[in-house]
Amino acid sequence: MNVHIDNIISDLKKDNLEAYLLTQFTNIKYLSGYKPTSFAFCIIKDEPVIYASGMDMELANNDSSIEVRQYESFEVMIGEMKKEGIRNLAIEPTLPYSTYAKFRDDFKIDSKTYVDKQRMIKTADEIKKITKATEIAQKSFLDLDIANNTGSEKEVAFDLLRLMIENGASGESFDTIVTGGASSSLPHAVPTDKKLSHPVLIDWGALYNGYCSDNTRTMVYTERQHEISDIVAEAHDKAIKAIRPGMKCCEVDRVARDIISGYGYGDKFIHSTGHSLGLDIHETPGFSPKDETVIEKGMVITVEPGIYLEGEFGVRLEDTVEITSKANVIGDLPLKI
Amino acid sequence: MNVHIDNIISDLKKDNLEAYLLTQFTNIKYLSGYKPTSFAFCIIKDEPVIYASGMDMELANNDSSIEVRQYESFEVMIGEMKKEGIRNLAIEPTLPYSTYAKFRDDFKIDSKTYVDKQRMIKTADEIKKITKATEIAQKSFLDLDIANNTGSEKEVAFDLLRLMIENGASGESFDTIVTGGASSSLPHAVPTDKKLSHPVLIDWGALYNGYCSDNTRTMVYTERQHEISDIVAEAHDKAIKAIRPGMKCCEVDRVARDIISGYGYGDKFIHSTGHSLGLDIHETPGFSPKDETVIEKGMVITVEPGIYLEGEFGVRLEDTVEITSKANVIGDLPLKI
Repeated sequence: MNVHIDNIISDLKKDNLEAYLLTQFTNIKYLSGYKPTSFAFCIIKDEPVIYASGMDMELANNDSSIEVRQYESFEVMIGEMKKEGIRNLAIEPTLPYSTYAKFRDDFKIDSKTYVDKQRMIKTADEIKKITKATEIAQKSFLDLDIANNTGSEKEVAFDLLRLMIENGASGESFDTIVTGGASSSLPHAVPTDKKLSHPVLIDWGALYNGYCSDNTRTMVYTERQHEISDIVAEAHDKAIKAIRPGMKCCEVDRVARDIISGYGYGDKFIHSTGHSLGLDIHETPGFSPKDETVIEKGMVITVEPGIYLEGEFGVRLEDTVEITSKANVIGDLPLKI
Repeated sequence: MNVHIDNIISDLKKDNLEAYLLTQFTNIKYLSGYKPTSFAFCIIKDEPVIYASGMDMELANNDSSIEVRQYESFEVMIGEMKKEGIRNLAIEPTLPYSTYAKFRDDFKIDSKTYVDKQRMIKTADEIKKITKATEIAQKSFLDLDIANNTGSEKEVAFDLLRLMIENGASGESFDTIVTGGASSSLPHAVPTDKKLSHPVLIDWGALYNGYCSDNTRTMVYTERQHEISDIVAEAHDKAIKAIRPGMKCCEVDRVARDIISGYGYGDKFIHSTGHSLGLDIHETPGFSPKDETVIEKGMVITVEPGIYLEGEFGVRLEDTVEITSKANVIGDLPLKI
């Protein structure tokens, strides 16, 4: 039995719940080693069990450290759970309504974030994988030689993927953003067939052994672009310097937001300052105005302030930090390219 | 106002509901033209409205045919909905539990599949896009020249993506499967650094203008592999020939399953015979043993029987069909390569 499962069982007992139902693929992977490719139900209890679909049985039997049974029907599964005395069931907040509706008549249901709570604090092995993913992504970005690249946004995005795979990634950790000119004011712009125009904003990450990386760089050219970039860089640097275990996440957001607001661009910083990452590209906690989570050693969170001027351009600068006694930037890519 | 929204409003009135809450990105895209890149809430009612996140406002204002407001908080949104007299609210079955929990105290909630029902029947324009996606994917597969390809599974998967993009796709419609030898018995195998071994199973699709394609071919070599492939091909061909509007989806699954069972491999066909596709790679209805949906003109569904022999190999053959007065295979890639 692994320590994460032990912790969940102890959380369940404290809350007078008998079992925790998991269906999120990365949660099941985190606890069992098996990442479903079709639906699966993982029931964490004193004797944990995974109900896998027929098509995943070979994979699940190979990879799972938790007992695997073949899923037959909701009736059979619920029958087995009730026979074991389960009455009070914890679920993930993300559970789809239709699945919740299948369980609610037979169990008292309570939404819990036990696995998220564990996944917030990365193990040394997880930090190694995130670091390796970041190193691959950053080396690939430099290999791209963006200053001399004459491709379209789509071509550059594809080149970056090719380089990440050549450098050891299994793929990208999310759809790469390569955007230029006015469309850089869209935080999640989709690459087009347009040739690169200025400024060039690239937001990219590698996937390595299941773990994600995340960086953004914006290459600026005009005086106005440099002015905005300097403000974003100041927010980025001062937010990172401010981070300490024991602070609340929202306080880090406040540091970045106050700097940008001080220059008069507060309403142009239209997203949170950062999010955790790991097996998923977006995890909790985040450096957002409402997140009161207390920062702890072992968290891995992005810091990515931005200023978006509709009709003009946008600038975002993003690094990922590991929390120790302070925030250490992962990788060594210069902020200004 | 578009016809899909009109249909939903008429469904709502029939069911005595005042509004339909949508959060699935492809459902919002289907009805409004705007595909969220962050969370969004689309409320379909007499005067539909989308609450978009601050970071999506520029995109939403550009792309949405439905009025866009900036999301501030659940309280504000729920307050505005109640002020308009909404008491009975339809939701998607996929709505996350935590979001459902924010609405359930203020509304009587009912799970409905109004949008799925519309999306089942593709318009001529949608079928054109799916056909184009399929043509790109199939041309790229031929360009790959798999018989003379000496790459690893990962390299072949990457080459196929490169060719699809060169041929006009915006990307792949799901993670390409390239697998060989014993691991072909895993229906959703992940490409590895292994050189291609026999048989070679490739399951791939292109994304074109937001629409998906889906095909599988298995290149077989030994007598035993040919024997299994012939059975799968027979199930594939006879299932497609059997399809008629008015039949139930499960009856098509039955045709394919009976053939494979007749040869003694019924328990080795470990998934459904097919699924619909469109803006998503998996849509409803599907050719599954339990799906009682009546087949209609305009549906676009895959037919993909397979036989998986653990420790030996697997064979799957997949085409996508458009339902007219019968089932027309989209594209013209030979079944046996």
